[in-house]
Amino acid sequence: MDINSYITGFVDGEGSFTVSFSLRKKMKFGIEVRPSFSISQNKRDYNLLKEIQNFFGCGAVRFVKKDNCYKYETRSIVDINEKIVPFFEQYPLKTSKQQSFLIFKKICNLIKKNLHLTKDGVAQIINLAYQMNNLGARRYKKEYLLRVLNKKKV
Amino acid sequence: MDINSYITGFVDGEGSFTVSFSLRKKMKFGIEVRPSFSISQNKRDYNLLKEIQNFFGCGAVRFVKKDNCYKYETRSIVDINEKIVPFFEQYPLKTSKQQSFLIFKKICNLIKKNLHLTKDGVAQIINLAYQMNNLGARRYKKEYLLRVLNKKKV
Repeated sequence: MDINSYITGFVDGEGSFTVSFSLRKKMKFGIEVRPSFSISQNKRDYNLLKEIQNFFGCGAVRFVKKDNCYKYETRSIVDINEKIVPFFEQYPLKTSKQQSFLIFKKICNLIKKNLHLTKDGVAQIINLAYQMNNLGARRYKKEYLLRVLNKKKV
Repeated sequence: MDINSYITGFVDGEGSFTVSFSLRKKMKFGIEVRPSFSISQNKRDYNLLKEIQNFFGCGAVRFVKKDNCYKYETRSIVDINEKIVPFFEQYPLKTSKQQSFLIFKKICNLIKKNLHLTKDGVAQIINLAYQMNNLGARRYKKEYLLRVLNKKKV
């Protein structure tokens, strides 16, 4: 068994690359950008999530009451850019999740360059994020976020 | 990338080992036993399902209208025993799905020996199948099937 290929297969089924947005009045442009790589499982597979945490050497496993499941998640932009992204460059996903990953990678690269702290950068990130597959989970419509961004006086 | 390990990882997330039961008055004991190995995906990952079909060299991919998805499925007991089971013996699952697989394997072995054509064999298969994880999808309660089995005059 090659654990790298196993992880890619498992993530192709169960993993999520998401970029979420929160409204934060105290932030310069009113919008906080939060990338996350995560895998959720029933309690009975808690051990595998811990194994995956060890494998990537980052992130944490926690209980999510709302969904009654355990979630492995890495939110640190440094860990995402240095550990998660390079792994999936070397062992690429085979489902359409690969498209989401490529957008996720672009966004994390913009954040690395601190472009999420510029108005144009945030607009670019919003436009990219709304091309990702997991739209079902979106709290805000894209147009709403762009309106917030453009209205904010700086 | 090692495709074998990838497949195990993907199936650990997305695959299903199921044994379902149908009431068939014309059958000796009134109950038909049907093992199945399957993976369902959204239309956008149809190609990966075809790749998996080629990989295992058995089964078929079809559209399932009810769930609006595509499903790769192998139902042939010969293919399951000769292709599916040996693969997952060599590349074992790492989630709790492994428990379901081991029971599935036992049941397929009983069917191979034609024990699903004996009353005791069917009872044994029912008892094993109801120890598998995917109970949510069960059409009949275990007790009901055992009652049908015991009432059938042969």
